[in-house]
Amino acid sequence: MSDNQIPTFDELKSSLQRIRSYVHKTPVLSSQLINKITGAELYFKCENFQKVGAFKFRGAINAILQLSESDRANGVATHSSGNHAQALALAAKMNNVQAYIVMPTSAPKVKSDAVGDYGAEIIWCEPNLESRETTLAEVIERTGATLVHPYDNHQVICGQSTAVQELLEINHNLDIIITPVGGGGLLSGTSLAVKYQYPEIKVIAAEPEGASDAYQSFKGGSLMPSINPNTIADGLLTSLSERTFNIIRRNVDEIFTATDKEILIAMHLIWERMKIIVEPSSAVALAIVMNNKEYFAGKRVAIIISGGNVDLKKFGFQNL
Amino acid sequence: MSDNQIPTFDELKSSLQRIRSYVHKTPVLSSQLINKITGAELYFKCENFQKVGAFKFRGAINAILQLSESDRANGVATHSSGNHAQALALAAKMNNVQAYIVMPTSAPKVKSDAVGDYGAEIIWCEPNLESRETTLAEVIERTGATLVHPYDNHQVICGQSTAVQELLEINHNLDIIITPVGGGGLLSGTSLAVKYQYPEIKVIAAEPEGASDAYQSFKGGSLMPSINPNTIADGLLTSLSERTFNIIRRNVDEIFTATDKEILIAMHLIWERMKIIVEPSSAVALAIVMNNKEYFAGKRVAIIISGGNVDLKKFGFQNL
Repeated sequence: MSDNQIPTFDELKSSLQRIRSYVHKTPVLSSQLINKITGAELYFKCENFQKVGAFKFRGAINAILQLSESDRANGVATHSSGNHAQALALAAKMNNVQAYIVMPTSAPKVKSDAVGDYGAEIIWCEPNLESRETTLAEVIERTGATLVHPYDNHQVICGQSTAVQELLEINHNLDIIITPVGGGGLLSGTSLAVKYQYPEIKVIAAEPEGASDAYQSFKGGSLMPSINPNTIADGLLTSLSERTFNIIRRNVDEIFTATDKEILIAMHLIWERMKIIVEPSSAVALAIVMNNKEYFAGKRVAIIISGGNVDLKKFGFQNL
Repeated sequence: MSDNQIPTFDELKSSLQRIRSYVHKTPVLSSQLINKITGAELYFKCENFQKVGAFKFRGAINAILQLSESDRANGVATHSSGNHAQALALAAKMNNVQAYIVMPTSAPKVKSDAVGDYGAEIIWCEPNLESRETTLAEVIERTGATLVHPYDNHQVICGQSTAVQELLEINHNLDIIITPVGGGGLLSGTSLAVKYQYPEIKVIAAEPEGASDAYQSFKGGSLMPSINPNTIADGLLTSLSERTFNIIRRNVDEIFTATDKEILIAMHLIWERMKIIVEPSSAVALAIVMNNKEYFAGKRVAIIISGGNVDLKKFGFQNL
């Protein structure tokens, strides 16, 4: 399998078989009130209930389970301040593999604590991409660990496709499926899994206006990374890679953007009415449904809720 | 059926049959991490996912469904600033019955808006018990509506028992069942349903230290209403009635209290780890488990999560 190839349907299916006993089969929830507000029939695939609180665990465990014996001995490495760090740390721990996580010194303590609790070694770097990448290169040089990139990775993309595969197993009577897009791992895996099986279902991406590289690249036809991205949806600050853009340009039907205000309103609605905690990145999809009503009205729409890892210190628990 | 009688097992069972098609069968969730922290095996019956976001809908719909034809025509009335108001308004609307809700002018706008949206008539009163009761008496005098008290009501207690009945249908291999206690409707119904079927399961109540009338009454052996109750658990400010105390003293094994700080820590843990929104009143049960570890360690413990109606303006959405 060349690493430049696009994942095949067989690879996506075998990834689901491989990881099924390791992941939570997350629930699909609906809200009559939110349906009434939007005029659409919405189904939320709730990866906020996934292990480590985000879909990222799917890609990480899929990558870990495919390491060779010798690679397992040298461990895995990545740079991430977010959900991928925790996901890789837990997936590694479950398989007695050492994980090395490069984290910026600006990472929230709750996230670095969780990574440390999973037995991963944290290597601190400056909070910029250059420092992340040079630090990661040093770690890999020193340890011989295998890089498991958060999204620019074949096995990770295959793993992320399993959320929508589970959804389609119980309900494929859908018009549209929406995922958020940051680096494009979830969107790549989702769009492939959908189009291999149900090409008539539209795959739509939801992106924050403050980090709209996927929208710009998709519309312009060539890869245009974000410059100084800035959004409350902190899981979506990253830019597409050549690999994910190559999949997305072929398999995604449309990309919509939402402002931070729209994202926050959608997030509030989900918390208030569905009684579930979702992170801002997960609310972008509902935000675009609420702000493009004529497009979505009357449609059966599934939304992948990507995760629920919110810094609650910012949400009412400042004094704990 | 005299209104002073204690509900029979047949009445509890028939209440579940009566309301089954009207209520959500709420999920039972667990968290490995919270089990690890507490040393207990915890099962959370999640009434925050119930209609109107709280168990109160069960009692309200059970009462509405047992009105005579003539009573239906005159409507129902209650005073409540909280979940019972919304519950009665929705249950009435679903059955084409007019609801009259007496609310204090201090009630959160989000709650009065919800009550109004369900088509109930809101009658405002001063924020004290005397004004509530005289205003309610006037409404009943004017309309002939049937009073559906939030907890001092036979049908309401029968309805509240159905949450634990659903739980026991899927899992009765339990050592302890905990509910929060305010006026005692949920605790009365729960304790009866448990003791009729599984007297060996302990029923324990969780009460805020700042409104500990049930604890005082239970320990002292006579009814002692709260004086100036004050707690973050705003659903538990009310005091037991003779009716609920009479049931609780006979069927509850123990009452523990928790401070507001302990309640907030437990609530934070549920939000952060389980990714669900629960109201402070619902976190009291976990708070007592966390603060009486030797009592609960190694035990299979079910907790009734009473609701998820939180004023999110206090929790990070101030600027929406």
